[in-house]
Amino acid sequence: MTMIGVLGGMGPLATVDFMGRVVRLTQGARDQDHLPMMVASLPHTPDRSSAILGDGLDPLPALYAGVDLLNRSGVGLLVVPCNSAHHWYEQMRRRSAAPMLHIGEVCADAVPQGSGKVAVLATRGTLVSGFYQASLRERGIDFLVPDALEQARISACIAQVKAGDLAAAARLLEQALRRLEAGGATAAVMGCTEIPLAAGAIPQAPMPLIDSTQELAAATVRYALTRGWNVSA
Amino acid sequence: MTMIGVLGGMGPLATVDFMGRVVRLTQGARDQDHLPMMVASLPHTPDRSSAILGDGLDPLPALYAGVDLLNRSGVGLLVVPCNSAHHWYEQMRRRSAAPMLHIGEVCADAVPQGSGKVAVLATRGTLVSGFYQASLRERGIDFLVPDALEQARISACIAQVKAGDLAAAARLLEQALRRLEAGGATAAVMGCTEIPLAAGAIPQAPMPLIDSTQELAAATVRYALTRGWNVSA
Repeated sequence: MTMIGVLGGMGPLATVDFMGRVVRLTQGARDQDHLPMMVASLPHTPDRSSAILGDGLDPLPALYAGVDLLNRSGVGLLVVPCNSAHHWYEQMRRRSAAPMLHIGEVCADAVPQGSGKVAVLATRGTLVSGFYQASLRERGIDFLVPDALEQARISACIAQVKAGDLAAAARLLEQALRRLEAGGATAAVMGCTEIPLAAGAIPQAPMPLIDSTQELAAATVRYALTRGWNVSA
Repeated sequence: MTMIGVLGGMGPLATVDFMGRVVRLTQGARDQDHLPMMVASLPHTPDRSSAILGDGLDPLPALYAGVDLLNRSGVGLLVVPCNSAHHWYEQMRRRSAAPMLHIGEVCADAVPQGSGKVAVLATRGTLVSGFYQASLRERGIDFLVPDALEQARISACIAQVKAGDLAAAARLLEQALRRLEAGGATAAVMGCTEIPLAAGAIPQAPMPLIDSTQELAAATVRYALTRGWNVSA
């Protein structure tokens, strides 16, 4: 039995959302058809976005503690359903005996050809870190980052999801998307695992949304099923 | 930092549901206000109900492996969001260094006074194990167990949740509840963590439902917050 290692709690609801997607992406009528997971939900991890912006505690010791906890449990893969934490991807990957997927890479891989100009929806920290822009540029995908006004709404949307108010979060996201559409965006990458929770509460998004939580869950399930981790023996 | 240990995967969607409730029951606008959890989602654990009925592999070795895994991670509390697994409560409790809550006890504690005749909705294994009947009897609560026809619908409802078809599960649960109501039930205990997922898809249940997933989540959050586990230092 090999387990998927999930380092989560960043935020806690996004981790629950991620796990639900892994379960729903795994076909099977019986419990025993599903994939074993070891999940460290460590919400006390210092805020990643603030740290990238130079205004907060360093989350790396907490990230290392989670990586170690999961590796000591013998997980065969490490995934982190938090985009901002991927600012420290190289450090976590090197620390982990188990290989690690990169949420930004799997999400950029999922942008359909002909998407036009892709808006990057993320925390300020993830935008400053720049890994989404680099991944999209590498793949020849045209993109834009929100202006300050749109970003204020995106950041407030993320904060509302963390506070548990999905209706307020959805309103903010919808306003930001309409403005981004007017500014020329024809698709958007949801590069923060809180944003899909808000998007789920919008009746009709004005453009196609590529979902980093869903893409990480899909890549995780593919990795595990290819290796037969749903077989108990 | 002390973590809540969750031994889950029985079924996997019920574990995700349980975690979501723990998050939603924890007030706080920031990730850091929430409770750390270590979750072993081990869906390959042999079917508990079948084993109780003498028709299937013994799940105790897999339950022990999960208990050990969580205790090695240093959890401060053990909870198992699967009712049928509580047939082996005493064995798991003795095996675990961390104390363990009992889902049936916390659920029976939550039955309101004056509930009248409480139907026990559970797997056949849980009914045969008899711990719900014992907990209700101890508290002087009048109860009934479903007849074969109602139980066939309850068992099918549970199987549909495990297979991911919540709409089919809800129809079966609603039919069973209407029949139980006609048979004199005035409330029901959802003594299987799959059933609340079906109940969530019923527009209006014909009687008050006491939810073992919710009660275990509430007891878990109370236990952890009393001890300050949401404080990182």
